[in-house]
Amino acid sequence: MQLRTLIVALLALSAPAAAVAAEPIQPVPAAKVKNAGMVELGKKLYFDPRLSKSGFISCNSCHNLSMGGTDNLKTSIGHNWQEGPINSPTVLNSSMNLAQFWDGRAKDLKAQAGGPIANPGEMAFTHELAVDMLNSIPAYKAEFKSVFGKDAANIDMVTDAIAAFEETLVTPDSRFDKWLKGDKKAISKTELEGYQLFKESGCTACHYGPAVGGNSFQTMGVVAKYDTKNKAEGLGGLTGKDVDRMKFKVPTLRNVEMTYPYFHDGEADTLEKAVDIMGKLQLGRTYSADEIAKIVAFLKTLTGKQPDFKLPILPPSTNDTPKPKPFG
Amino acid sequence: MQLRTLIVALLALSAPAAAVAAEPIQPVPAAKVKNAGMVELGKKLYFDPRLSKSGFISCNSCHNLSMGGTDNLKTSIGHNWQEGPINSPTVLNSSMNLAQFWDGRAKDLKAQAGGPIANPGEMAFTHELAVDMLNSIPAYKAEFKSVFGKDAANIDMVTDAIAAFEETLVTPDSRFDKWLKGDKKAISKTELEGYQLFKESGCTACHYGPAVGGNSFQTMGVVAKYDTKNKAEGLGGLTGKDVDRMKFKVPTLRNVEMTYPYFHDGEADTLEKAVDIMGKLQLGRTYSADEIAKIVAFLKTLTGKQPDFKLPILPPSTNDTPKPKPFG
Repeated sequence: MQLRTLIVALLALSAPAAAVAAEPIQPVPAAKVKNAGMVELGKKLYFDPRLSKSGFISCNSCHNLSMGGTDNLKTSIGHNWQEGPINSPTVLNSSMNLAQFWDGRAKDLKAQAGGPIANPGEMAFTHELAVDMLNSIPAYKAEFKSVFGKDAANIDMVTDAIAAFEETLVTPDSRFDKWLKGDKKAISKTELEGYQLFKESGCTACHYGPAVGGNSFQTMGVVAKYDTKNKAEGLGGLTGKDVDRMKFKVPTLRNVEMTYPYFHDGEADTLEKAVDIMGKLQLGRTYSADEIAKIVAFLKTLTGKQPDFKLPILPPSTNDTPKPKPFG
Repeated sequence: MQLRTLIVALLALSAPAAAVAAEPIQPVPAAKVKNAGMVELGKKLYFDPRLSKSGFISCNSCHNLSMGGTDNLKTSIGHNWQEGPINSPTVLNSSMNLAQFWDGRAKDLKAQAGGPIANPGEMAFTHELAVDMLNSIPAYKAEFKSVFGKDAANIDMVTDAIAAFEETLVTPDSRFDKWLKGDKKAISKTELEGYQLFKESGCTACHYGPAVGGNSFQTMGVVAKYDTKNKAEGLGGLTGKDVDRMKFKVPTLRNVEMTYPYFHDGEADTLEKAVDIMGKLQLGRTYSADEIAKIVAFLKTLTGKQPDFKLPILPPSTNDTPKPKPFG
């Protein structure tokens, strides 16, 4: 009797959200800001190219918040114009990923944030030099002190602050989310048909949840081998296990209209190509042109509210700030 | 009698502004926005790296509005990590310059804006390709149509819009401007002494007006030759005249605390060095360390209100948009 009472109570509680709960995709929740000061500091750091050896590359260079949190290049440009090994994933909604990077080698945003700074092919700096730079600037020191209560910044605080800022980079209120929440006019008949096809043909097996992805690692090329010159092996590169070869984190499809080109190698330059290849390689299904058009129409309803904040103004370097070294 | 009446009337008119008019430096006037739509469009273009061959370099890369409208590098990084020939001047208050570029080769901001896009060492694109890119994007086309009333963008509209945005990038309300306007507590005793020394020792012969510079071309190295490995010859490079060799546009000193490093070659990495060299080379005067400190203190009062707007969100490319070519 007690159990039945509980079930009835739970059903009553969940009733208003029933329409949402029945779908494999849920609306993107608005960001909850826990520490506004830390977010503001993280925003400055995100835009500060002095975290790179050259003084030219910031987080925002490759995860450009004006462009869907990506650089819209196949693979990124790093220090000294080095060609990056993999496509820059979007930072938007990345807090919902089960892990960070395509191969999931960072467990969270904080662990991720330190990577590119010290990667010789990306920002080519060191954590020590980045922290020295920040501690040479009184306005930064004061901000770290105010946020962390310590007299000097360290790399832990830097990555905490960047992660705190990135956690705010969610994109709620897409047309699809409005539809999920009950506004049946928010998407067109074609877009709805695209969504139904997306569900029925199995895309939601991997692309589900609020981020429409980011919840699991899956093999790129289930039904047929993915043909690429890119050398990334995904999870297999980490574990060394054959079963993990070409297993990549399923990317979010939120704002996918803005995050071209697609796949870990950036080789699909249109959504149409990406959908066609996914159908063939992951589902063993050849979508017709009409079906592809419908799915693409649906995917474009996933574009949400983009970052909405003022361009941060960075505190200037002082005479004691180490100089950037762009050329050798 | 008529002339006397006129003079009396003019004196009466100018009386309230007498305190300001007596100084060689005037406050920075707030921006007058003539066409808000054009400014918004220009802001997007200013931040859009798709105006470069690589899809990676925007106007904001080298004239970074988070960092005083400069890149804070000796000379800039261009396409394929090319080392630029000259220090990137600040875009802030650049509308007040008598001409653009260090050698004044562009008569105004509109003429300047097209330069870097097509410069093989900077954005390495062509005007034609830049316009093709914009016209492939319906949201851009609609915005050009709304602002210019034409169905397709052309390079004239692009440079008009960028210039319109740049005209808004003025920095009023510095502490020094507050002092100029009568708030005698806005600057300290040391800062005021620095200003008096700046005036009395002759700096204002070249650094005058609202931008504290930008009004004339002057020879770098009047009293003694400026020793540099930089090959730029300034106005002489344009006119071929010996008298114009090493004549550069006098840079604005507004926000000079943020626009390091200094001089056309970026070789002075601190304000102290810059003041010392200017004293010796332009005025034949060796300032004491105390005098330099005072002038530097004054110069730091010239930092005004920095750009204050939301990060623009760029419309995504379409399937028809030409792809960037970062690597060859």
